[in-house]
Amino acid sequence: MSFLESLNWRYATKRMNGKKVPQNKVDIILEAARLAPTSSGLQPFTILSITDPALQEMIKPIANNQPQITEASHLLVFAAWDSVTPEKIDEVFDQVIQERNLPADGLDNYRNFLKSKFGSMSTEEQFQSAARQTYVAFGIAIAAAATEEIDATPMEGFRNSELDELLGLKEKGLRSVTLLPLGYRDEENDWLLKQKKVRRTKSDLVIEL
Amino acid sequence: MSFLESLNWRYATKRMNGKKVPQNKVDIILEAARLAPTSSGLQPFTILSITDPALQEMIKPIANNQPQITEASHLLVFAAWDSVTPEKIDEVFDQVIQERNLPADGLDNYRNFLKSKFGSMSTEEQFQSAARQTYVAFGIAIAAAATEEIDATPMEGFRNSELDELLGLKEKGLRSVTLLPLGYRDEENDWLLKQKKVRRTKSDLVIEL
Repeated sequence: MSFLESLNWRYATKRMNGKKVPQNKVDIILEAARLAPTSSGLQPFTILSITDPALQEMIKPIANNQPQITEASHLLVFAAWDSVTPEKIDEVFDQVIQERNLPADGLDNYRNFLKSKFGSMSTEEQFQSAARQTYVAFGIAIAAAATEEIDATPMEGFRNSELDELLGLKEKGLRSVTLLPLGYRDEENDWLLKQKKVRRTKSDLVIEL
Repeated sequence: MSFLESLNWRYATKRMNGKKVPQNKVDIILEAARLAPTSSGLQPFTILSITDPALQEMIKPIANNQPQITEASHLLVFAAWDSVTPEKIDEVFDQVIQERNLPADGLDNYRNFLKSKFGSMSTEEQFQSAARQTYVAFGIAIAAAATEEIDATPMEGFRNSELDELLGLKEKGLRSVTLLPLGYRDEENDWLLKQKKVRRTKSDLVIEL
């Protein structure tokens, strides 16, 4: 399938059949998310890949009992940094300097610019900025799943703070942002599968100047 | 190239050579963004595709004089709805009802739930929610460009309100969020092309539970 055919093939799967997605396919989806570009290369998020059925059962009520939470073989949780601190910025820049064999102070101007930029934001604004980057990786992970013919359901509908509590995210400096159950569509029972994909028309969505 | 090979091929192009991207390739990138999933299917954004060199010249200083703004043949501006009003929600749901041949009141429960949800948010919160959805389409557009071997530079570094003013976005109920110049890498002059792509390791980025 071409990339556009894959995007047309995918849909927000409402029911999955419980079949297990091979780990090598999940790894491709995670690798796509890892390769996603992010502002200043910070990659300010963590992805939790959950395959423990008992944990999925505990998450289900927090996500309004959506059945895909337990019908998926892998439940991805995208969680953004709750703050963008100088320490976290240093970690990223130290890695770049090491991997590119740059002088230790080679990126100091940009590093300090970023520290000052985030330092002037509230913690909540830092998180919101990190959350936006998370959506880039989330979008690319959704597309990667489609190219591998793995079904996925992008989800915002869950109680974030309860999930953070359950997964101990606060202690990790993270806040949950989105969910992505991975599995296979239940062709008999998924009402949405038979429905036409609806999108705004190109002329409504795009302005050419 | 596989999808992962495409994601490895792409990079945040710092210099472009001015060569024109064929319109059919740009249309594939725009179509990928149009097919991107969004929360409740609202697609709360507009994409401006700018090919007028004079307008690109005017945008360049607003984007810190980054050369790709004018070296790109197409400059995409992703702009999110500045608010999510009952009228906009009705427009989306009316389209779904028409295209899926549903009874006129067939989606009233969900439609009213959404109106009430957004109605309880401030205008700024409505915009932030729309902006997040924009990043999903932005991520998928970046990936689409890579699959077509079109270079692209994801950009947040510009003065949003000045761009909104220049493009008359406020009157359209929009606020600019990101830029994506499309073009071809200038292999001789782009310092970043020769640098190793750096990403956090999988073990640092992913937690398996």
